[in-house]
Amino acid sequence: MNHIAAGKAGNASGESVGGQQRRVEEDLTARVLASFETCTDPRLKQLMQSLTRHLHAFIRDVRLTEAEWEAAIGFLTAAGHITDDKRQEFVLLSDVLGASMQTIAVNNEAQGNATEATVFGPFFVEDAPAIPIGGDIAGGAAGQPCWFEGTVTDAAGTPVPNARIEIWEADEGGFYDVQYADARIAGRGHLHSDAQGNYAFWGLTPTPYPIPHDGPVGKMLESVGRSPVRAAHLHFMVTAPGLRTLVTHIFVEGDPQLEIGDSVFGVKESLIKGFTEQPAGTPAPDGRDLGTAAWARTRFDIVLAPGEA
Amino acid sequence: MNHIAAGKAGNASGESVGGQQRRVEEDLTARVLASFETCTDPRLKQLMQSLTRHLHAFIRDVRLTEAEWEAAIGFLTAAGHITDDKRQEFVLLSDVLGASMQTIAVNNEAQGNATEATVFGPFFVEDAPAIPIGGDIAGGAAGQPCWFEGTVTDAAGTPVPNARIEIWEADEGGFYDVQYADARIAGRGHLHSDAQGNYAFWGLTPTPYPIPHDGPVGKMLESVGRSPVRAAHLHFMVTAPGLRTLVTHIFVEGDPQLEIGDSVFGVKESLIKGFTEQPAGTPAPDGRDLGTAAWARTRFDIVLAPGEA
Ligand SMILES: [Fe+2]
Ligand SMILES: [Fe+2]
Repeated sequence: MNHIAAGKAGNASGESVGGQQRRVEEDLTARVLASFETCTDPRLKQLMQSLTRHLHAFIRDVRLTEAEWEAAIGFLTAAGHITDDKRQEFVLLSDVLGASMQTIAVNNEAQGNATEATVFGPFFVEDAPAIPIGGDIAGGAAGQPCWFEGTVTDAAGTPVPNARIEIWEADEGGFYDVQYADARIAGRGHLHSDAQGNYAFWGLTPTPYPIPHDGPVGKMLESVGRSPVRAAHLHFMVTAPGLRTLVTHIFVEGDPQLEIGDSVFGVKESLIKGFTEQPAGTPAPDGRDLGTAAWARTRFDIVLAPGEA
Repeated sequence: MNHIAAGKAGNASGESVGGQQRRVEEDLTARVLASFETCTDPRLKQLMQSLTRHLHAFIRDVRLTEAEWEAAIGFLTAAGHITDDKRQEFVLLSDVLGASMQTIAVNNEAQGNATEATVFGPFFVEDAPAIPIGGDIAGGAAGQPCWFEGTVTDAAGTPVPNARIEIWEADEGGFYDVQYADARIAGRGHLHSDAQGNYAFWGLTPTPYPIPHDGPVGKMLESVGRSPVRAAHLHFMVTAPGLRTLVTHIFVEGDPQLEIGDSVFGVKESLIKGFTEQPAGTPAPDGRDLGTAAWARTRFDIVLAPGEA
């Protein structure tokens, strides 16, 4: 289809467009907007008309060339073809453009002292193993042992007993279990807060890892000189009846990737936590024998906003 | 992933957003824009930053919900999976949103009396059969015979000899040959203008046809109450050394679909041509024996703008 790339190159900016040409372009946008007037679902109509407005404004602002349009079609096609049950290139694309995080921002307005939300990411799995309080989610995944503890409360500070806490993280090589060649479950689990809202578990000290970058999104990041690496983090999803479900991470204070930049823009200041290094031989909180391994510990107190789970 | 849809529903409009929330959203957009500052290709940087700006503005304007974000990811995934060598759902999507036509508009500014361009569409095939002037492109495709004739000139009116004219069209059932079950070639061909810039050929009187609508784009059109049907047309691509390549259609005056609306917004007033019905028995311009068939004729004079082929 590169025949249609033969037209003259677009202007560098829409500002230089003359009156007659501007009318042609505006009239086209108006016709597309009008075509959605038949839509009987007012929300769908609003979405399609706003999408049309912004998409046309983008094309006009950058004076998109026909070759660039073809490259965009090729990009979406490649993203579609690499996407399957285990790989979601469109989610990665949304993530690296900050669109996922902007959607989260729009839907999770700050509510007083409630813990902030961040991206869900592509690596959550339903039915991760149940562990008791103080149990271990590592499941044999390699990494430094880390003790996580905290409380779950509502915005008034009242403890939330029996909150369901899902946690998942990558191993020290940067891989989630779903990226392993075998079907092993590791680095994930769920537990419930106790009667006082307390929880604790063993996991791994989070380490930075790249998002899958062997596809079109990875190529794009490389073309623009951006790192595919995510700041070190552990994922939480916390649910309790009558409270807003919280999807978030905690990040590791001092992680150099926090300076370089998280590839999906998931970092919020309030989610960066101190991880205290414990020299080998330091007694564990639950008396566990860690042998000659150094370990770490951190605290993450969770405040759930009012709402529906 | 519908866990993340549990956040509270977005506002209907971004206008009601308070100052603190607006700063959170604007700061996020600014961070994404800054991430592209490393890009050493100034045009790529401009494209990615403008895309980011418009994408974030869309999400913020409509207060996109997490469920809607998931629906968008699902739509793109389905579009990717139906796309193959013969089916291009992303081109259809661009077409029905008017993005293809806006790209054409931006790249083919009106130049005096030059013939206007329109969408390329997904049905062009390289190496269509060569026909002589007055030859027939139908190749057995069903439809009413139609005589097309005209001249190719430059903007000053000087005839353009030996211009390459590619033509392609659907049969009266609404199908291009590439949509047939077999590999038959029909309804397409190419010829060259003569020493005086004249051309003529037999084809079929164009009839309206739907774009492929058994995929996600078709479902979207149905949801919003839009017709997938294109106004009746025949495609032209005209190339000649030292002149701008023209990709266009001609449309059929009186076609009711022109009122209903062309599903890809390809119609321009100047491209609507009178097709004169010829009762059975009317002698053909080239003496061809059309038996008892009524036929039609039309004229399309082509003016190529200056530029590169
Ligand atoms: Fe992650
Ligand atoms: Fe067509």
